[in-house]
Amino acid sequence: MRGVQIGLIGFGTVGSGVVKVLEENGSLIEKRLGQPLILKRIADLDLDTDRGVSVDHVQLTRNALEVIEDPEISIVIELIGGYEPARSFILNCFRQKKHVVTANKALLAIHGDEIFREARRHGVDINFEASVGGGIPIVRSLREGLVANRITSLFGILNGTSNYILTKMTDGGGEFGQVLQEAQEKGFAEADPSMDIDGIDPAHKLAILLSLACGGRVRFDRIYTEGLSKISPLDIQYSLEFGYKVKLLAIAKIEASQVEARVHPTLVPIEHPLSAVNGVDNAIFVTGDVVGPTMFYGQGAGQMPTASAVVSDVVELARNVLFHSAGRVSTLSHQDRYIKAIGIKDIERVVTRWYMRFSVVDKPGVLSRISGILGKNRISIAAVIQKGRQAREAVPVVMMTHEARGRDVIRALKAIDQLPVVLDETVRIRVEDKLS
Amino acid sequence: MRGVQIGLIGFGTVGSGVVKVLEENGSLIEKRLGQPLILKRIADLDLDTDRGVSVDHVQLTRNALEVIEDPEISIVIELIGGYEPARSFILNCFRQKKHVVTANKALLAIHGDEIFREARRHGVDINFEASVGGGIPIVRSLREGLVANRITSLFGILNGTSNYILTKMTDGGGEFGQVLQEAQEKGFAEADPSMDIDGIDPAHKLAILLSLACGGRVRFDRIYTEGLSKISPLDIQYSLEFGYKVKLLAIAKIEASQVEARVHPTLVPIEHPLSAVNGVDNAIFVTGDVVGPTMFYGQGAGQMPTASAVVSDVVELARNVLFHSAGRVSTLSHQDRYIKAIGIKDIERVVTRWYMRFSVVDKPGVLSRISGILGKNRISIAAVIQKGRQAREAVPVVMMTHEARGRDVIRALKAIDQLPVVLDETVRIRVEDKLS
Repeated sequence: MRGVQIGLIGFGTVGSGVVKVLEENGSLIEKRLGQPLILKRIADLDLDTDRGVSVDHVQLTRNALEVIEDPEISIVIELIGGYEPARSFILNCFRQKKHVVTANKALLAIHGDEIFREARRHGVDINFEASVGGGIPIVRSLREGLVANRITSLFGILNGTSNYILTKMTDGGGEFGQVLQEAQEKGFAEADPSMDIDGIDPAHKLAILLSLACGGRVRFDRIYTEGLSKISPLDIQYSLEFGYKVKLLAIAKIEASQVEARVHPTLVPIEHPLSAVNGVDNAIFVTGDVVGPTMFYGQGAGQMPTASAVVSDVVELARNVLFHSAGRVSTLSHQDRYIKAIGIKDIERVVTRWYMRFSVVDKPGVLSRISGILGKNRISIAAVIQKGRQAREAVPVVMMTHEARGRDVIRALKAIDQLPVVLDETVRIRVEDKLS
Repeated sequence: MRGVQIGLIGFGTVGSGVVKVLEENGSLIEKRLGQPLILKRIADLDLDTDRGVSVDHVQLTRNALEVIEDPEISIVIELIGGYEPARSFILNCFRQKKHVVTANKALLAIHGDEIFREARRHGVDINFEASVGGGIPIVRSLREGLVANRITSLFGILNGTSNYILTKMTDGGGEFGQVLQEAQEKGFAEADPSMDIDGIDPAHKLAILLSLACGGRVRFDRIYTEGLSKISPLDIQYSLEFGYKVKLLAIAKIEASQVEARVHPTLVPIEHPLSAVNGVDNAIFVTGDVVGPTMFYGQGAGQMPTASAVVSDVVELARNVLFHSAGRVSTLSHQDRYIKAIGIKDIERVVTRWYMRFSVVDKPGVLSRISGILGKNRISIAAVIQKGRQAREAVPVVMMTHEARGRDVIRALKAIDQLPVVLDETVRIRVEDKLS
């Protein structure tokens, strides 16, 4: 039979998008691939909800095994998300010699090691373009487009929800809690938003990108993660005065001897292309030792952008099926025997410049006490903004420091926050001046 | 013998860059590909100049045939540029069943039809990532990353020289001629800069991108091309007042019934990501019907970025050699039998908004004469700026129009420029408000 037969497990939002793409652009894809993609079976527990797409020629089932064990199906798309049963389904696909496409970043960040190893052991491919940056072709760009490069750094805006919230706060939308609530009402944030705003979701994606860039195993729990909840519009405004925007950045700096990997609010120079990435958009700024700085930009989530990535992966694996070229590109962009564990530098040893906002009683000697403690901890001040004088009330004192170690900053701020003249926990945000 | 053997024709700037990449990152590339890339032969007329790279293990020759006819070589890199003998060398490679990597945009834009057809006929691959956007992986993104999409529009800053000149003029660097001369002195512009500043080079690149997006033959002479030489700092300043930057854009708008393809100075909304692309950087803003808007950004030229793209192509073809999967991805992203001629809409029929700057004598009734002629030609005015009143001297009157057809604008300006109160040729620049 002509064509490449595929199965889908998970008929939710993205799954419906995939069906829609195959329906609307199927003939275009056939012109490109040379053969039709035939969606033979879909498995989902819910077979009743109308997804608004035609499944007349598809066999629907509540039993995922009917997809996994169908001998005619050579590629299975896993879109149920979460750890289990997604993990078991994928491992079962491998045993059935089926190639897999997944968008499941959490699963790959935590269990990627096992999953990639098992795929190799069974001689099948697993593709996961949709796991990072929605429809942006960043995974294949790292694996193929930049194959001649040692990747030296990656800076990503990888979470649409948190970028939307920061953009709204920058545009005068109010305090974090208020903007979050509006985002939830508009459907831009989940009812439980913690994966997004606490930085877990972008950290999952960073783990995947870092694995690809270095060809290695990344221990997810070694990636430092800090969310948005302590950022106030005041910090965004002061940052602008210093010439920076506040972004939730996923950062990897890769040197031969050590790797930094961290997700946290970051001051980004206002003229840097990442500063212009607003709303739910995503972007990945990648520097290679040959190509120099590059950036990949687009919608980081949503039904159709994600479906675009899923189908591009299916087409790639279908080409491998048709040309008997499975394993043509290594999953982690390096051959098995070169896959190594990547050691990640402790966040307390990471050196950056810092933005600090102190809430202090405005009386003589306060600034000198603070700067004294900073100095004792090897933190020197590059610039200070102090406005408004309201005796005996809290006033903000805002500083930009020179480069300082995380450990020193923690120690200094612990001492400063215990001073009686300091009225609230000091806000501190890392600064990245050189993003390549 | 282990490894994939390659040959290089053209040991100039980019060729030396390729040798350097293979030397410095060869072992990294081997970890990714699984086999070494072995540069066996280099052909160039000049074998004396020191390129600063090691060629100890390479056989140098002045005779390209020694590369083309070496039976051990399976991939030939063509980097001599120009039409001949590059074209003949490439066609000869195909006859010898060798896959080809080239950066030669002019050749592909003019002779692509013949070259792609001959590659198909001989069952070999030709890759050309380096022909557009330096190291930016835009060709493979169109062919593979966005394979699920009907591409609906492309907007590219595809020429570093002209973007550098416009950026300098925007930053107060002076008139066009002066900035061009400085760019030449700094090596950012050629001694004969016409290919760049007249828009020929970006039009070559647009022809290639459009062929990829539509899977078709593009007649290069149907792409309207207009250069920078009439733009003055005054126009850049007025554009900023209207909320726009002036960019030399390569534009393709693709509808089922018709295709627009044109290169000209363009007013781009200041908040659009393309407005933030400065200096010699390039970017391609691509919209697909599934993925939505995406952007690809990086250094558009230069030895090492271009070498990055060349080597990524070599690796891709080497994978095809190792997996016997030549033809796996179609050259123009569509199978042969679907390649069609792409009809391009006549520029006079293209509808855009317009920026116009009239140099007029400042006396009563002038604005009404001009707007009368515009009105008679179905051009309506959206906004006017008129500053400075110097009786009997030339003053600028600047307008933004609503949407108007090219033909109507040409006719109206011809009549207006013949008025005795109009002292100089009217400057008109197309405006693009919606770039997706």
